[in-house]
Amino acid sequence: MAKMRKPIPVEEAISHVWKHRLTGESEHVSINDCDNRRLAEDIIAKHPVPPFPKSPYDGFALRSEDTLEANRHNPVTFKVVEHIGAGQVPEKTLRKGEATRIMTGAKIPDGADCIAMFEICQTYEEDNQSYMTIKRMMDPEQNIIQEGSEVAEGDKLIEQGTKINPGVKAVLATFGYRQVKVAKKPVVGVIATGTELLDIDEELQPGKIRNSNAYMITSQVNRAGGDYKYYGKLEDEFKASYETIKQALEEVDILITTGGVSVGDFDLMPAIYEKLGADVLFNKVAMRPGSVTTVATSGGKILYGLSGNPSACYVGFELFVRPVLHAALYNQNAFLRRVKATLADDFPKPNPFTRFVRSYLTYENGKVYANLAGMDKSNVVTSLAHTTCLMILPGGTRGFKVGDDVEVVLLEDQEGQDEFQLT
Amino acid sequence: MAKMRKPIPVEEAISHVWKHRLTGESEHVSINDCDNRRLAEDIIAKHPVPPFPKSPYDGFALRSEDTLEANRHNPVTFKVVEHIGAGQVPEKTLRKGEATRIMTGAKIPDGADCIAMFEICQTYEEDNQSYMTIKRMMDPEQNIIQEGSEVAEGDKLIEQGTKINPGVKAVLATFGYRQVKVAKKPVVGVIATGTELLDIDEELQPGKIRNSNAYMITSQVNRAGGDYKYYGKLEDEFKASYETIKQALEEVDILITTGGVSVGDFDLMPAIYEKLGADVLFNKVAMRPGSVTTVATSGGKILYGLSGNPSACYVGFELFVRPVLHAALYNQNAFLRRVKATLADDFPKPNPFTRFVRSYLTYENGKVYANLAGMDKSNVVTSLAHTTCLMILPGGTRGFKVGDDVEVVLLEDQEGQDEFQLT
Repeated sequence: MAKMRKPIPVEEAISHVWKHRLTGESEHVSINDCDNRRLAEDIIAKHPVPPFPKSPYDGFALRSEDTLEANRHNPVTFKVVEHIGAGQVPEKTLRKGEATRIMTGAKIPDGADCIAMFEICQTYEEDNQSYMTIKRMMDPEQNIIQEGSEVAEGDKLIEQGTKINPGVKAVLATFGYRQVKVAKKPVVGVIATGTELLDIDEELQPGKIRNSNAYMITSQVNRAGGDYKYYGKLEDEFKASYETIKQALEEVDILITTGGVSVGDFDLMPAIYEKLGADVLFNKVAMRPGSVTTVATSGGKILYGLSGNPSACYVGFELFVRPVLHAALYNQNAFLRRVKATLADDFPKPNPFTRFVRSYLTYENGKVYANLAGMDKSNVVTSLAHTTCLMILPGGTRGFKVGDDVEVVLLEDQEGQDEFQLT
Repeated sequence: MAKMRKPIPVEEAISHVWKHRLTGESEHVSINDCDNRRLAEDIIAKHPVPPFPKSPYDGFALRSEDTLEANRHNPVTFKVVEHIGAGQVPEKTLRKGEATRIMTGAKIPDGADCIAMFEICQTYEEDNQSYMTIKRMMDPEQNIIQEGSEVAEGDKLIEQGTKINPGVKAVLATFGYRQVKVAKKPVVGVIATGTELLDIDEELQPGKIRNSNAYMITSQVNRAGGDYKYYGKLEDEFKASYETIKQALEEVDILITTGGVSVGDFDLMPAIYEKLGADVLFNKVAMRPGSVTTVATSGGKILYGLSGNPSACYVGFELFVRPVLHAALYNQNAFLRRVKATLADDFPKPNPFTRFVRSYLTYENGKVYANLAGMDKSNVVTSLAHTTCLMILPGGTRGFKVGDDVEVVLLEDQEGQDEFQLT
């Protein structure tokens, strides 16, 4: 009855999909719209930072050699020849015995080689002329922020593929990027299949449930940096399903269907792959949930058949779709970041296959703890709301106990890592 | 020269601002636009999940009492009277000796009280009638997912203030929320001040730098869940600055200015607060960077005077603005999440005041490490690009070494915590 399928290990499944990952494309967006996008190019310093030597304090710019004789008993007096704030350009070149009153961030005048902070200076006026006196020796370059001391022209500052956060945006502004070259968002088609599915605004009917997988996936696509195109839900009817899927494949970079991939009497996806002439990379993975996850390629597009079961669908997306999207976003660390943690709850079930358990992280005294997000029945949608990571329990293990070491993959982390290897 | 200001501790400054936090307002958005917004109400189960008893497997629904005699040597035969897939409604009530062929997710027919998986059944046809035989006894309720076994009607599933992630969105879809009641985004006005500032697309000029703070802050506002309104950059000129700030205060919930809050000759903000009749909550905080951070209230609005120094500006936003925005977003944990970590780099500088060091987290063997994001000069904008947390080094401490215990506040975490107390 059930056609036999050969389950393959998770790592092998991921590496099959990875071979078909998307190539990145770029586009320009206004800096005002670049938050959370990923850079399509390295950001190189177009000029030194700071671009001119400047003062870190409010004080007086002067020539340090003029203070050689200054000490507690011998104040040295300077004539204040100019007064500049940040953004004003000093016009006077300082000569012997002259000083410029200067504010934080202002350009150091020619001739000056140090800044004396207000706190160590005395000032007075005489005949409408300002003077300042100083009772200590200054060193050459003291309190000067030198041109290029933060960043030299040509320095590589930020890597291609980096997500644009507030700090990255500040760097882009510093170098005048009004337009930012970012990775184009891959377009992911989403189709939910299943005669049991109601539209979101339909009243419940006997035997039916509302379509939640499609909405969940659109949100996963957004989180992973893609754009989605939702094609609605399909009844388990071959001809209409085939036509919609065939059409959608022409319009998107990746197509995800949910449901219909198992071996039930109304599971149509295998026959649809066949009619499409799609190359099925795998149709069974040695994992829970999501063992029926199927990935195929057709006409250069990747076609994901995720389980109709919400948790399996969720896990299938993160393991198999997310890395491909991140590859298209130029992220050099396209895979989920994996960290070790201590188990905070008992998990008594045995694990015949690699299990991905919906979890969230807590921190205590410098250690990381993995907590169960809820019941781990694969049909429990509500626990997904609290999920921020997936705990990986290796296949062939028995239950786990509080305090055991486990590994988790982080779902809301923006860094990722450059390979996926289960230990 | 420098007017004396009395620095107050960071916790005290935060608690002053917190007293003036915004009250949340709500609005409805389409479920298609709700990603990353925060819920303005608790989500309560409108119906049980699942809403009807259903099958977890492909198999046969039958009456367990009919299998009482079944064993390896005595197969019991059932007449298959119906065939239903998920979403189809069983019409036949099972009588003695009858079974329904049923697919995963389909509603259990009346009369049936268990599901026998395909794997343990034999089927055959005779005279165009399907039969199945079973060689083992079934228990009542075996393999039945009972109505409400995941969630009972009326259960509180998700708290007000929760950020909408893929799992939350799935729950919203499950319960038919086409429109979602979310927190309105507070509007944050942003004004950069400083004669030294160039617009982002201007060529560099001597003594001037491009305005990066305003762009950085708009990104911080986005990350914190607010909307921004950018009023451009102002020269250090009193009248125009006063007018713009006064006007902006009428149009936004919160107004942030950068620069002009120190005691330099061209720092206008103190005089502007005075002319506005604003109530200055504090104008000096015992912290680095950002000691000159000023917060005032005027006409029920909060007016932040952040430092013009990029890192000080950044830190000031996260410590003082973010919690107020999160309060308006109904987040019960409006403060930055604080965790313990092990220092991964030496930090030799002494800390006369509480210091917030730009850092990022790494994980190793179940432990959390805080790494320096770059040079920690307060004028170094580039290290902000790599910052995901701020390390807190208590005032009155000397340098710290690799392996020391430190605390960090997480900037990209979505949970936060319900109070801010430095230890």
